[in-house]
Amino acid sequence: MSIIHQEILKIPTRAYHTVEMTAEVGAIIKQHAIKWGICHLFVRHTSASLLICENADPTVRQDLENFLRRLVPEGDPLFLHQTEGPDDMPAHIRTILTQTSLSIPIQNNSLLLGIWQGIYLYEHRGQAFTREVVLTLQS
Amino acid sequence: MSIIHQEILKIPTRAYHTVEMTAEVGAIIKQHAIKWGICHLFVRHTSASLLICENADPTVRQDLENFLRRLVPEGDPLFLHQTEGPDDMPAHIRTILTQTSLSIPIQNNSLLLGIWQGIYLYEHRGQAFTREVVLTLQS
Amino acid sequence: MSIIHQEILKIPTRAYHTVEMTAEVGAIIKQHAIKWGICHLFVRHTSASLLICENADPTVRQDLENFLRRLVPEGDPLFLHQTEGPDDMPAHIRTILTQTSLSIPIQNNSLLLGIWQGIYLYEHRGQAFTREVVLTLQS
Repeated sequence: MSIIHQEILKIPTRAYHTVEMTAEVGAIIKQHAIKWGICHLFVRHTSASLLICENADPTVRQDLENFLRRLVPEGDPLFLHQTEGPDDMPAHIRTILTQTSLSIPIQNNSLLLGIWQGIYLYEHRGQAFTREVVLTLQS
Repeated sequence: MSIIHQEILKIPTRAYHTVEMTAEVGAIIKQHAIKWGICHLFVRHTSASLLICENADPTVRQDLENFLRRLVPEGDPLFLHQTEGPDDMPAHIRTILTQTSLSIPIQNNSLLLGIWQGIYLYEHRGQAFTREVVLTLQS
Repeated sequence: MSIIHQEILKIPTRAYHTVEMTAEVGAIIKQHAIKWGICHLFVRHTSASLLICENADPTVRQDLENFLRRLVPEGDPLFLHQTEGPDDMPAHIRTILTQTSLSIPIQNNSLLLGIWQGIYLYEHRGQAFTREVVLTLQS
């Protein structure tokens, strides 16, 4: 067995917003002795996604939100699926165009992220939820 | 060694359609004793991709197809590469905008998918093929 | 421990171009005895990404570049973030729409890529950089 840890994180979100998870994930890794590893994250939803994004300037994520809103507009007459409202189908497509899982290398108990890289959970629906993210550590 | 199984699945597709693989992948996992694991899937093609998508309402995948068809239209004068026809270059781009591989956590011999998440192989060409997907189990 | 190797590759890029890494990655794998494995690649930047793409006709990557340039144009008045110039925010979005990490199955010391699949590092900024890619081998 090389998978040394697995847990489900519950993360509150806000409508159309990203939540940074970098510190929370880093703290879990620090509790394990990992020389070389992989941290795997998986979001258990089809209307929220995971992102590695520039972490210095918050306007980057604001620009990204505005870009996705223009690319996949709510109320587009193309969409038949509106079960949960006009934000439903755009949320599925935004999730598919970004990531449902991330895997990030670990070295000496730290994520090998670049200095401008942060880990984010991205809520694509127009309301707040508590989202589940499965964290798995491999060594 | 932590990789306990690897096999190549051969999956028939239909033009511009998704094929659900969730049950087939789940059945393979059931044959192995995995407390904590990762299921890794990799499609060996550049004109077909893998997707985690809402699995309850089929119009979600129909809307996705219509969205991608509008975003990356066939016969776009932008495209020089048309070796195999007008669906050739759009298929490559649609593959790149979605996923060539998926990795999904396993717990107690079951995929830790959310209740609305299904695994799909997505054919981006305008004809049927048999596509190869490599399944690898890590424990 | 199932992670048998990890190293950071330094790869020079050119503005808006892809660099093929398939042979370099394959040569590193050949140095290890791996019956079944996964090769994981992670780019430590938010303005460059990783890609599995058709490797036979170079116009595929030229068409992809032209498509992304039209989809995420430089100088778009939508973008507030321009810290490093008009190519800054488009580079972040292009990275997010493609991949920050890849994982590719290995069998008998070879990548299980399809015959038309190549591994590429994609520079999304309008200048040359040296980019870091973390390679991790799991067996």
